[in-house]
Amino acid sequence: MTEKVFDLEFKVRDYECDMDHVVNNAVYLNYLEHARHEFLLGLGIKFGELSKRGISLVVTRIEVDFKASLTSGDTFTVRTQFSRNGRIRLQFNQSIFRKLDNRLMLSAVVTGTALNGRGRPEIPIELDLVLGPTD
Amino acid sequence: MTEKVFDLEFKVRDYECDMDHVVNNAVYLNYLEHARHEFLLGLGIKFGELSKRGISLVVTRIEVDFKASLTSGDTFTVRTQFSRNGRIRLQFNQSIFRKLDNRLMLSAVVTGTALNGRGRPEIPIELDLVLGPTD
Amino acid sequence: MTEKVFDLEFKVRDYECDMDHVVNNAVYLNYLEHARHEFLLGLGIKFGELSKRGISLVVTRIEVDFKASLTSGDTFTVRTQFSRNGRIRLQFNQSIFRKLDNRLMLSAVVTGTALNGRGRPEIPIELDLVLGPTD
Amino acid sequence: MTEKVFDLEFKVRDYECDMDHVVNNAVYLNYLEHARHEFLLGLGIKFGELSKRGISLVVTRIEVDFKASLTSGDTFTVRTQFSRNGRIRLQFNQSIFRKLDNRLMLSAVVTGTALNGRGRPEIPIELDLVLGPTD
Repeated sequence: MTEKVFDLEFKVRDYECDMDHVVNNAVYLNYLEHARHEFLLGLGIKFGELSKRGISLVVTRIEVDFKASLTSGDTFTVRTQFSRNGRIRLQFNQSIFRKLDNRLMLSAVVTGTALNGRGRPEIPIELDLVLGPTD
Repeated sequence: MTEKVFDLEFKVRDYECDMDHVVNNAVYLNYLEHARHEFLLGLGIKFGELSKRGISLVVTRIEVDFKASLTSGDTFTVRTQFSRNGRIRLQFNQSIFRKLDNRLMLSAVVTGTALNGRGRPEIPIELDLVLGPTD
Repeated sequence: MTEKVFDLEFKVRDYECDMDHVVNNAVYLNYLEHARHEFLLGLGIKFGELSKRGISLVVTRIEVDFKASLTSGDTFTVRTQFSRNGRIRLQFNQSIFRKLDNRLMLSAVVTGTALNGRGRPEIPIELDLVLGPTD
Repeated sequence: MTEKVFDLEFKVRDYECDMDHVVNNAVYLNYLEHARHEFLLGLGIKFGELSKRGISLVVTRIEVDFKASLTSGDTFTVRTQFSRNGRIRLQFNQSIFRKLDNRLMLSAVVTGTALNGRGRPEIPIELDLVLGPTD
């Protein structure tokens, strides 16, 4: 089974900072999404191909703890761990570490599922292979 | 004590939609933030004035349940309820309803606090007056 | 022929402002796009229907003069004028006026065209009717 | 005098793509701004320090020609050339090249200036040194 931890490095861009000179809350969700997509791509999960077969990956719940704020010029790593949560739920545990001092800036749990063409949860075979069987 | 429920109406803008033709997850946080800021402004809480006194309002935790997706052209209401959660925490319960059918699209709990110039939690007097005493 | 001037009112949202406490340059393009789309929608031009027929509307050139900066709390109007520029080019002249004092904050010329399924410029019949014949 | 051409590499993130599966127009301005800021930073021009002295760098005009569209997964380079345009104007010529085939996707001319605390154009000494004297 493929190793299911993935690190992706980013640098804060000035347009992502708000009037308080820190990265705006919503922008962190952009970072987290990009890290998940790059992770899945590396595992051979292609959104385009799934889409052609009528399968879409959707986020159903997000919990985010904001611990400290990234600011202009910061570089940081998004660490993503991916696991199965029951038969039809996918769970991503994601953390953001500032590069300067390895400080934990944010931790998040993102839950999703895959929907087939009839809008019903259905985990596609590629994900089944990557994630392994339900416990 | 001021009534602490606030409704704000929005319309989805096409640039807020992603390749799946639905509003991108992060954009919902923009909607929720704008509703909170307009709510606080209506209660006489001015970010600028707080800022001059060295007080900043920060979000510490967000929980969002995505129930259905807004799409291009949808109009919707963000409903915000505001309450105190202990001595130093502010809690916003927020829901998004699609106007067409009043369907609940998203519900969220956003927790925040106010930090004084020394980075310590301190609820400013304006918020104290609006929120009432700790239970 | 339909009147081809359209005004749309907006209010600046705090997340649209950057570290200098003014609306970030790129955000103005969002405002301008939303105004164009609402304008076309009001004229009966539906992106979805065009898309089903394999026609997409694309922007080919933008010129923007930034004259003064919108800031947190400002309300403003985007005024859009729509005209034909030769056989296959559409031209939008757009201006942003601050509501407080009717000051001109920005003026822009946005040029676009419609592409058919073979990637060739082709103005669809709905637009032909709205815009009138080439001079 | 420092060489005044700067290349910065990016990868399109899915949240930057719109319903047509291409990068939204406004997002290109984000890319261009980030490239300019990184460029200036590399030349020793620090926004923070300028700001403390009451000097702000502002964009006054943007011209963009959109030649082809970036899409999900594309990597690309923003090339920025920086020059003086008269005594008080700064000019950035910027181009975006897709990495796959080195195709020119966009070319832009961005004009700006520096404003002192009284809102008057004034080029700070750091920029003077970098840009050289007016012709």
